[in-house]
Amino acid sequence: MENRILHVDAGAGYDIVIEPGVLDDAGARIKAALPRAKRLFLVTDSHVSPLYGPRLVASLEKLSFEVHTHVIPAGETSKSAENLVALWEWMTAHGVTRTDAVVALGGGVVGDLAGFAASTVLRGVDTVQIPTTLLSQVDSSVGGKTAIDLPTGKNLAGTFCQPRLVLMDPDTLATLPESEFMSGMAEVVKYGCIWDADFFDFLAARPTRAALTADIGHILYTCCDIKRQVVNADERDTGLRMILNFGHTLGHAYELAGNYETWTHGQAVAAGMVTAAELGETLGLTEAGCADKIRAILTPLGLPTHIPCSLAHMEKAVGIDKKSAGDSVTVILLEKIGTVMPRKMPKEELLELLAGICGRDA
Amino acid sequence: MENRILHVDAGAGYDIVIEPGVLDDAGARIKAALPRAKRLFLVTDSHVSPLYGPRLVASLEKLSFEVHTHVIPAGETSKSAENLVALWEWMTAHGVTRTDAVVALGGGVVGDLAGFAASTVLRGVDTVQIPTTLLSQVDSSVGGKTAIDLPTGKNLAGTFCQPRLVLMDPDTLATLPESEFMSGMAEVVKYGCIWDADFFDFLAARPTRAALTADIGHILYTCCDIKRQVVNADERDTGLRMILNFGHTLGHAYELAGNYETWTHGQAVAAGMVTAAELGETLGLTEAGCADKIRAILTPLGLPTHIPCSLAHMEKAVGIDKKSAGDSVTVILLEKIGTVMPRKMPKEELLELLAGICGRDA
Repeated sequence: MENRILHVDAGAGYDIVIEPGVLDDAGARIKAALPRAKRLFLVTDSHVSPLYGPRLVASLEKLSFEVHTHVIPAGETSKSAENLVALWEWMTAHGVTRTDAVVALGGGVVGDLAGFAASTVLRGVDTVQIPTTLLSQVDSSVGGKTAIDLPTGKNLAGTFCQPRLVLMDPDTLATLPESEFMSGMAEVVKYGCIWDADFFDFLAARPTRAALTADIGHILYTCCDIKRQVVNADERDTGLRMILNFGHTLGHAYELAGNYETWTHGQAVAAGMVTAAELGETLGLTEAGCADKIRAILTPLGLPTHIPCSLAHMEKAVGIDKKSAGDSVTVILLEKIGTVMPRKMPKEELLELLAGICGRDA
Repeated sequence: MENRILHVDAGAGYDIVIEPGVLDDAGARIKAALPRAKRLFLVTDSHVSPLYGPRLVASLEKLSFEVHTHVIPAGETSKSAENLVALWEWMTAHGVTRTDAVVALGGGVVGDLAGFAASTVLRGVDTVQIPTTLLSQVDSSVGGKTAIDLPTGKNLAGTFCQPRLVLMDPDTLATLPESEFMSGMAEVVKYGCIWDADFFDFLAARPTRAALTADIGHILYTCCDIKRQVVNADERDTGLRMILNFGHTLGHAYELAGNYETWTHGQAVAAGMVTAAELGETLGLTEAGCADKIRAILTPLGLPTHIPCSLAHMEKAVGIDKKSAGDSVTVILLEKIGTVMPRKMPKEELLELLAGICGRDA
């Protein structure tokens, strides 16, 4: 696999470096991107730390950075206000200055939490993201969203803040459990659906982890490139970016239905994309056969193409309740593989369609 | 007093409305500025709430806003991570959406805390600032800094976030204790020192609270206008904005010397401006007589022109310690009343000068 670099124009502008073994070159790359940084505040989690922490720290210390490390427990519950405050206190106790930087090594939880802390400590220091999961590599490295969860819901506090550098070492995916790899693949397939039919076909021709891994550099590059194009056009998340939510609204209903335990985010999104395609076909807005094509790509990957769900969960996920009577809702539908369209729908119409979908399960 | 409106170009751009009785017109003004907002999250403190809360809420409800109110205890200790998280949870529990807004009614503590919460809940909702103290009216309404304190220090976490509207009712100053009014006056005098000799003379001719109050609209307008000019030129706090720190570095030393209890921020800044002028005169960089002119304007206001302070506190405030050997430090010096210059100084030189100042107290 060769070395791929993608430049993103958002924020101060930054590079995404996709390179096997880049972990060992992180010190030099960070030095080049952030010449004024003296202290690096490395945030990682209890799974990733023993796997990749020592190599990364060695690479950073070789360049004479003063490295401080904070390890959070692995898992979504670490994306908490408590950990955010702990990071602020840890960094300020170690004399963080505005030219220092935070380095986030791990999956989306680490990236979201560390990014939020970095963008607010001293009103903002630089962030370097080193995503180590497929989902975080294709999803959270581009877009500049940071967040924590609150007892009232997920991702309810956060910032928009672009990193200064993203380093992706595809080799880190070797240690990713099968279910996490495939969960990430649901987002990968999404990029094909919404933007690039050729990429969709490329993925369809690689129905195993081994085949996908052989071309992982191209896959990571393509997904980040698509997200980059979408996000560049819409840095503040107001319009175009909503196409990235294809499959996600229904996916959210499925996550709710399983109480965020039964189904991973990727599994829920996989089934959500199929249902969204079916919905579009029912309406005559989506080319016939799309749902089947999506099923055909997901099934060999072991991803679900249907998840039973009550109408109540669907209504909650779509944000429809009695109070919003009269409002309309925007759903992201396929036109055909590679092309989506946001479609504004009267609430009543969407409710009826969703009732039909749920009715099948009854 | 007439109605004054100042437009600030930072962020999405916003108006500062300076108008006696504007509290009663807040609903209509917010409706005009934020036509899509349905819910308003009013944050205020235990001092201000009984004084101005009911009038403001009545004005908001007249325009059919759904108003939720959160009262924090008055005082700097409320600017805490704990209260920030409480605001996030409160807003999300009440169904805040991205088109709703936070209204901050009170002094700098309320404005900083509520502004931070607003700029991060759902990754940012709009803020309306209604500052009720002289210090917050002339200092924190322009510039878009939000913050909380941490156990490790003051203002160590926060955001840059411009409000969408600032409403100043000069009548709210009537209930301000004398010491707080005069503390705010230290910042007012600062604007004369750094930017506007005519304004300095205007203030010097009004040596009582009654005389100042008679022209308070002009005073508020002038201070905000100066800060606006400085901040517009430097939205991210990297260069020119540092002239706003005139008197503040030494002021910080005085606050430290009094353990943040003996001296208010304004008192410390007052003495800090005099010392900075003396320092400049000693160096031959500040026109002779400036320190005397500043003393002459501060003394009738009951503000201190000298505060005893150890060299250790000065060193800490200036950020000089053994580790920074060889570095230089930028201090803001007067050229003459109305003109400042940032001056880079070798650490040794500044230390010697500061030792001389402290020596006088020995």
